[in-house]
Amino acid sequence: MTANRIPLSELERGTPFEQRHIGPDDAARAKMLAQVGYGSLDELTAAAVPDAIKSAAALDLPEARTEEQVLAELRSLADRNQVLQPMIGLGYHGTFTPPVILRNVMENPAWYTAYTPYQPEISQGRLEALINFQTVVADLTGLPTSGASLLDEGTAAAEAMSLSRRVCRTKAPAGSQGLFVVDADCLPQTVAVVRTRAEPQGIDVLVADLSEGLPAGLEDRGVFGVLLQYPGAGGAVRDLAPVIEQAHGLGAVVTVAADLLALTLLTPPGELGADIAVGSSQRFGVPMGFGGPHAGFMAVRDKYARSLPGRLVGVSVDADGSRAYRLALQTREQHIRREKATSNICTAQVLLAVMAGMYAVYHGPQGLAATARRTHRYAAVLAAGLRAGGVQVVHGEFFDTVTARVPGHAAQVVEAARAAGVNLRLADDDTVGIACDETTGREHIRAVWGAFGVEADIDELDAATPDALPERLLRTSDYLTHPVFHQHRSETAMLRYLRRLADRDYALDRGMIPLGSCTMKLNATTEMEPITWPQFGAMHPFAPVEQAEGYLTLVRELEERLAEVTGYDKVSIQPNAGSQGEFAGLLAVRAFHRANGQEQRTVCLIPSSAHGTNAASAVMAGMKVVVVATGENGDVDLEDLHAKIDKHRDELAVLMVTYPSTHGVFEEHITDVCAAVHDAGGQVYVDGANLNALVGLARPGKFGADVSHLNLHKTFCIPHGGGGPGVGPVAVRAHLAPYLPNHPLQPTAGPATGVGPVSAAPWGSAGILPISWAYVRLMGGEGLRRATQVAVLGANYVAKRLAPYYPVLYTGPNGLVAHECIVDLRPLTKATGVSVDDVAKRLIDYGFHAPTMSFPVAGTLMIEPTESEDLAELDRFCEAMIAIRAEIDRVASGEWPAEDNPLRNAPHTAATIGAAEWDHPYSREEAVFPAGVTPADKYWPPVRRIDGAYGDRNLVCSCPPMEEYDS
Amino acid sequence: MTANRIPLSELERGTPFEQRHIGPDDAARAKMLAQVGYGSLDELTAAAVPDAIKSAAALDLPEARTEEQVLAELRSLADRNQVLQPMIGLGYHGTFTPPVILRNVMENPAWYTAYTPYQPEISQGRLEALINFQTVVADLTGLPTSGASLLDEGTAAAEAMSLSRRVCRTKAPAGSQGLFVVDADCLPQTVAVVRTRAEPQGIDVLVADLSEGLPAGLEDRGVFGVLLQYPGAGGAVRDLAPVIEQAHGLGAVVTVAADLLALTLLTPPGELGADIAVGSSQRFGVPMGFGGPHAGFMAVRDKYARSLPGRLVGVSVDADGSRAYRLALQTREQHIRREKATSNICTAQVLLAVMAGMYAVYHGPQGLAATARRTHRYAAVLAAGLRAGGVQVVHGEFFDTVTARVPGHAAQVVEAARAAGVNLRLADDDTVGIACDETTGREHIRAVWGAFGVEADIDELDAATPDALPERLLRTSDYLTHPVFHQHRSETAMLRYLRRLADRDYALDRGMIPLGSCTMKLNATTEMEPITWPQFGAMHPFAPVEQAEGYLTLVRELEERLAEVTGYDKVSIQPNAGSQGEFAGLLAVRAFHRANGQEQRTVCLIPSSAHGTNAASAVMAGMKVVVVATGENGDVDLEDLHAKIDKHRDELAVLMVTYPSTHGVFEEHITDVCAAVHDAGGQVYVDGANLNALVGLARPGKFGADVSHLNLHKTFCIPHGGGGPGVGPVAVRAHLAPYLPNHPLQPTAGPATGVGPVSAAPWGSAGILPISWAYVRLMGGEGLRRATQVAVLGANYVAKRLAPYYPVLYTGPNGLVAHECIVDLRPLTKATGVSVDDVAKRLIDYGFHAPTMSFPVAGTLMIEPTESEDLAELDRFCEAMIAIRAEIDRVASGEWPAEDNPLRNAPHTAATIGAAEWDHPYSREEAVFPAGVTPADKYWPPVRRIDGAYGDRNLVCSCPPMEEYDS
Repeated sequence: MTANRIPLSELERGTPFEQRHIGPDDAARAKMLAQVGYGSLDELTAAAVPDAIKSAAALDLPEARTEEQVLAELRSLADRNQVLQPMIGLGYHGTFTPPVILRNVMENPAWYTAYTPYQPEISQGRLEALINFQTVVADLTGLPTSGASLLDEGTAAAEAMSLSRRVCRTKAPAGSQGLFVVDADCLPQTVAVVRTRAEPQGIDVLVADLSEGLPAGLEDRGVFGVLLQYPGAGGAVRDLAPVIEQAHGLGAVVTVAADLLALTLLTPPGELGADIAVGSSQRFGVPMGFGGPHAGFMAVRDKYARSLPGRLVGVSVDADGSRAYRLALQTREQHIRREKATSNICTAQVLLAVMAGMYAVYHGPQGLAATARRTHRYAAVLAAGLRAGGVQVVHGEFFDTVTARVPGHAAQVVEAARAAGVNLRLADDDTVGIACDETTGREHIRAVWGAFGVEADIDELDAATPDALPERLLRTSDYLTHPVFHQHRSETAMLRYLRRLADRDYALDRGMIPLGSCTMKLNATTEMEPITWPQFGAMHPFAPVEQAEGYLTLVRELEERLAEVTGYDKVSIQPNAGSQGEFAGLLAVRAFHRANGQEQRTVCLIPSSAHGTNAASAVMAGMKVVVVATGENGDVDLEDLHAKIDKHRDELAVLMVTYPSTHGVFEEHITDVCAAVHDAGGQVYVDGANLNALVGLARPGKFGADVSHLNLHKTFCIPHGGGGPGVGPVAVRAHLAPYLPNHPLQPTAGPATGVGPVSAAPWGSAGILPISWAYVRLMGGEGLRRATQVAVLGANYVAKRLAPYYPVLYTGPNGLVAHECIVDLRPLTKATGVSVDDVAKRLIDYGFHAPTMSFPVAGTLMIEPTESEDLAELDRFCEAMIAIRAEIDRVASGEWPAEDNPLRNAPHTAATIGAAEWDHPYSREEAVFPAGVTPADKYWPPVRRIDGAYGDRNLVCSCPPMEEYDS
Repeated sequence: MTANRIPLSELERGTPFEQRHIGPDDAARAKMLAQVGYGSLDELTAAAVPDAIKSAAALDLPEARTEEQVLAELRSLADRNQVLQPMIGLGYHGTFTPPVILRNVMENPAWYTAYTPYQPEISQGRLEALINFQTVVADLTGLPTSGASLLDEGTAAAEAMSLSRRVCRTKAPAGSQGLFVVDADCLPQTVAVVRTRAEPQGIDVLVADLSEGLPAGLEDRGVFGVLLQYPGAGGAVRDLAPVIEQAHGLGAVVTVAADLLALTLLTPPGELGADIAVGSSQRFGVPMGFGGPHAGFMAVRDKYARSLPGRLVGVSVDADGSRAYRLALQTREQHIRREKATSNICTAQVLLAVMAGMYAVYHGPQGLAATARRTHRYAAVLAAGLRAGGVQVVHGEFFDTVTARVPGHAAQVVEAARAAGVNLRLADDDTVGIACDETTGREHIRAVWGAFGVEADIDELDAATPDALPERLLRTSDYLTHPVFHQHRSETAMLRYLRRLADRDYALDRGMIPLGSCTMKLNATTEMEPITWPQFGAMHPFAPVEQAEGYLTLVRELEERLAEVTGYDKVSIQPNAGSQGEFAGLLAVRAFHRANGQEQRTVCLIPSSAHGTNAASAVMAGMKVVVVATGENGDVDLEDLHAKIDKHRDELAVLMVTYPSTHGVFEEHITDVCAAVHDAGGQVYVDGANLNALVGLARPGKFGADVSHLNLHKTFCIPHGGGGPGVGPVAVRAHLAPYLPNHPLQPTAGPATGVGPVSAAPWGSAGILPISWAYVRLMGGEGLRRATQVAVLGANYVAKRLAPYYPVLYTGPNGLVAHECIVDLRPLTKATGVSVDDVAKRLIDYGFHAPTMSFPVAGTLMIEPTESEDLAELDRFCEAMIAIRAEIDRVASGEWPAEDNPLRNAPHTAATIGAAEWDHPYSREEAVFPAGVTPADKYWPPVRRIDGAYGDRNLVCSCPPMEEYDS
């Protein structure tokens, strides 16, 4: 048998992960290539990608490894993280994720592979979960309207500042956008993030001790907003009503950054007079993950509801008048208002908001309050013990955090505690902070006492020590009275509730989600597994770096590998969403120009086809947006570009351009464009949204760009989580590297010359970076390149198959598209009245998530198949689109009236076809079981088409009252 | 606030797990008690449980702990297991569970909380998965009919022996049931299990070296069966055809125990002439788990298909003529044939068979063969290195296992390997066994060489060493040619396939499964988490005990706590199913009588209402079954019992009785019954099937029984896994303890005087014991007792609510039932023709799994709600039953014809109501959305009522051919 022997080295390759990640196998690729008219993947991408940008060399990345090997590597990285009991506090707390939620939400692909709920009919499960979250936040803060989550507490506070600025009528003094006053007892990272945001917008920030009220002399300084922390970073619980009243007297809008757990016992900010509450819901069952992702929150008074940044879920009705949820007031957002948007945020932290909301559903108000009481008792007993041992405790009234003064000995105490397995906060040389949480136990109290050299008896002290909550601030109002917070208290009931909601939704585990520019590819289980291991999940973001070797190695390697992939010199993974990466990139550009004495360079050129976020981010970075026209072929209008460059030559800061373009095309002139901008002294920002068409083929950092942000939740396999978390690293060439984000609490997290933090945590959403690290490790350079090639092949295959039925709008070199294609519905709409909405909703009946609707061109669908969809699924999709075209023809021919046909009435629910009456010109079977749908395996949308306008007119953003449940 | 202070000790209780496990909260219990007519749980159970058996004292168990605490304890137990590279072999091998299968099958409640597919219409997903498994086994073994899994390889071999005895016509010599010849190269634990089974049945076992053929002189010894191992335990791959032919010449049936991975490269047993193949599918992606659970298998020639033990999935058609799967040939089983059954096995290892089948689906034939080739190459290179280093390698032809001779030094080599992180097999003082597997890498080959003092270059040897598989035995036939093994090769495709199948099924994550005697309660996530931790999952069952401290501590504590709960003196957790526990218990009784010189005591009294397994197990234990009548009230007929005792006084071995009875009643005379049996010199066996009604209230070991088996997959929360795994510990009083199972390879696993192993692994399905351990730890004695009380309350509540609509058949003291109740359909059936089947299938339309049908009384439904169902779900069920009664009335009144009504036509599929035609006297809406069903959340059965008889007439037990897929 020697002859037949296969060498071990070959056998050892096993099944390369690439074959699991990429859908079409060799045989399928051959068929697809034949359809597209190329002999090989290399020939195809050689023809599609302009020569000027092609990479000469292969990616210099470690060779691909198998899933077994990568899991073993991740385990050894995890073992290099040392998880101590986290008593650092500062907005991050130990928490116990109820296992039923961990397994059935965070580890369940039905939740984590879902897309943002833009198609609300097939997103009712997570929309209900988000309504629960909004109700939790609104009830606990005492403010009526909560959004569906923000990125973290720090950015939420910064968003509150912007909101305050927008809505406040206080006049700013000349040369300033006004003054934002921040209490010195706010979380230090929040203060830093606020400063980063304020500076480019021309807002002055005053940090002052507000414990005795506002400082004097603010009357003419244009105070438009005040930010308070409740309880304070040092633990103190103060009555904020007086200072709020004072601020209101100045005409300022008051934001209170609050702790949700404390609010189960304390008078909520809304009742103290606050206008806005922000914070983090992390301690509601979401692992700390070395900083994130967690769901930040914001709740506001009614009058500011329409100014809320980020997503807001509201209640509306469907075509049958049944209750249905959907995203409300979308006109606030960047994809509609662009530079006039209320914020650049376009991701929420849905998966984490769902978890936090479910934590409240599972524990209910009694359970939450009991946890708060226990946490508080530990803190009270801890403080009493310290006092009894002669240690000075700074505050008499606190919730979970005790501040102790040990002049000159703070470092020593912190070190002693560390040796005993507990991390404390080293506030300064004389001051130690100690935060209790849900996971605190007696052993930790004893360890802390030990570190202070104190011994005491817990039960004795417990009996002798009163609570340390101020009597006058004890909460008297109810919260979480809605039945949903009372019905799912057994694990069986909770499990079924989670399953029921998940079943209402369509996610990648059911079928394709061909969303243009969103790159809904495989989120492999091997990539996902490590994020719920305790060694990654339970790390506090401010743990000493020597405890986080595993994380720091992973971060460094990921940053280096992303730099290699993109051709840049330096990457920062701190931005925890694409929007924040964009903002960070523009800040770097701004800082660079200023460092060069070019402060006047503030013009940002943006093509009219750009993502709306670009414009919103530019405004946030203090830039002036100038729009460049798009030519008929979809490319940037070079003539207009040159004209605009000429016109703004001296003020030109940057050109922002997406590549491949938002039309899904490899524009041929990109290098010329870059050169022209550079010639004028500007920088080139390439939006990395479409990087999935470039990896391994071309590198923006090498073909002319200076800065990009990436979307790890697109190209690098972090799941969309139903609308977040995202991760948006910023990548720059060397000259911009000094201006990347950094962090006041972890100096190693960025350059000393950096622009400050853009996220609350030093390494952003570190907890999910193992996903992207694993993806790169599993694929290797060759695998990444092949993924890109197959993605391009898939898009061209779909384009070719659909072209006879729907015109494909834009193409690049050799008539090829990049990784996505736009099909034009406008002629059909004109002829028949069948709209792009009708087609999108009809696709639900066929068992698909719709492609992107009307972006970047109204009346079109943008389709991105990604490399992960196999040929069977691509064909199923094409055949559905072709069948829909035949249906449109039946409308065109008059066989079906424009007002009553399966497109107009889509999607069809089970209830519709179960009804006795059926008076449509098409059959029930045609409605719900069109060609390709197996009745036994059909996905049933839970509601019919939703009336969005109704919901916006009748804004309801928390759980609808019980009477509605009865009806 | 001191006054309001809640003491820390109270706050520290957190949310007791008991409140998560038990559905009805205090308020619900109060309502339910009011309905049943008692003031408290204690009053209720005081009235329900006969005084004579009530426990005086509370259970002496460690106090309940929270989920956080128990997870921490489990982690520390896990850390006390030391997992080395497993190269011991002997039928257990390292394997890599594809993460997509791990997460989406083994960790997915939709799969693991499902019940046995007795209601095939709502089990099509797992039935398809089992058909895949059967196809894998049939294809690889080359035998056409495979069952849906057996308990393990050892018991499968023993079942093959029994099957051979049944079907073989060879006459046994007088005083014997014939001779079973076993090759000495069979796995040692298989030989031991076969011996345990053979002895009570009067079968002689001859273990002999068959490598040169059968020994001479067997002609008149009644050889009915021969068992061979392929490859042998020592690794040798031999051509078995000659010895098989020889055996056939004697008229014997030949069984080959085979390795599935080897069969991807070797001529399969069927082609070598074998009649039966058995084995384990563990290495197809199922964690070793210190011995189990894994899916054993058996495949047979067509002529033996109707004699197969265990479950068999077959293809049939539904009411529309569509393809549908269901359990085939159930008339072979104990619930029908009782003591004439083909086996006592009534559980399969469904969850594990699903995993193994999916492993084959995901890897396909090419992937499996590649793994086999790599495994083999490592073995070949390993052997070549040893030879080159002067070590004697015993066999020239082998697959994955190398036997090396090192006279006098074997222990030293094994120890050296252990120090290098590898476990080898110490075969004897001179012999070491080394098995390669999917997880073997170069570092392990080098470590093994090092232990032998050998150094070599792997690549050099690889190039120079031919394969060591015999040329003449290379497989030439195809396998796994069915499309299902070729379509799901990307993770995305696999994920969707798993979801699609899961969605076809109804499990506990959708709603109640009120199966009498099956105790479908919560399988909490906290209990489930540890079983997929590598420290529990990756342990080899024959690893040295000093590496398994965590496991052994857990096993000891679990055995002790189960003894405390049941009132017995000693427990063995070895039996890996209830049937095996029963068998082990009866073997102990048998051994006890024989030790006392009472060999003639072989009569086993069994009430006519008993589970069929009782009788089948008694026969296997060499006993004669004598049936005792059941009185009109459902209790054992005392008069008949005494008559039977008198009649068989001298031969009386044991009375087997279920308590509470299979009628769900606490029989009042149980202590008298026990006394009468004891007076006659017999033993009392209490079947623990209904233990969920006793825990904390009464203890069989204290109220008169001598032995019980428990069902950890009922009372102690191991999930049913869609029809297995089960775990069936046997519990005995001290006088029977010397006769518990033991194991030849792990002396600590049982008493030296034991009856031999009843399972292949020393501690049976050790891998899932953390579930039951965690349950007991989480609940504490008080919690367990309360669970029992609420289970009794739930059953009585349902009985009370349903009594006005359906007569409740049997009750005990004070008109109360125990933990389940039987409602009688017979009068309604007689009046209307609506059968118990119709009601069961109609419940599917209402969104329920049916209760137990026609057991123990034909024409009835037995309902066991368990403590985990909350009041809302109990009410939903009662209301569905009441609504169904109203439907029956409409049939009775003639409004709906007997032949066309929603009951007769149930269940209704989406396809049915989507059809244009509807000519039933009831509406589509009445069909699929009866009262209580929300259309948006409806569970849709994928097929209509299945014609079981058709499938039994046209037996197809592997994946149906592609043409059928097209149709």
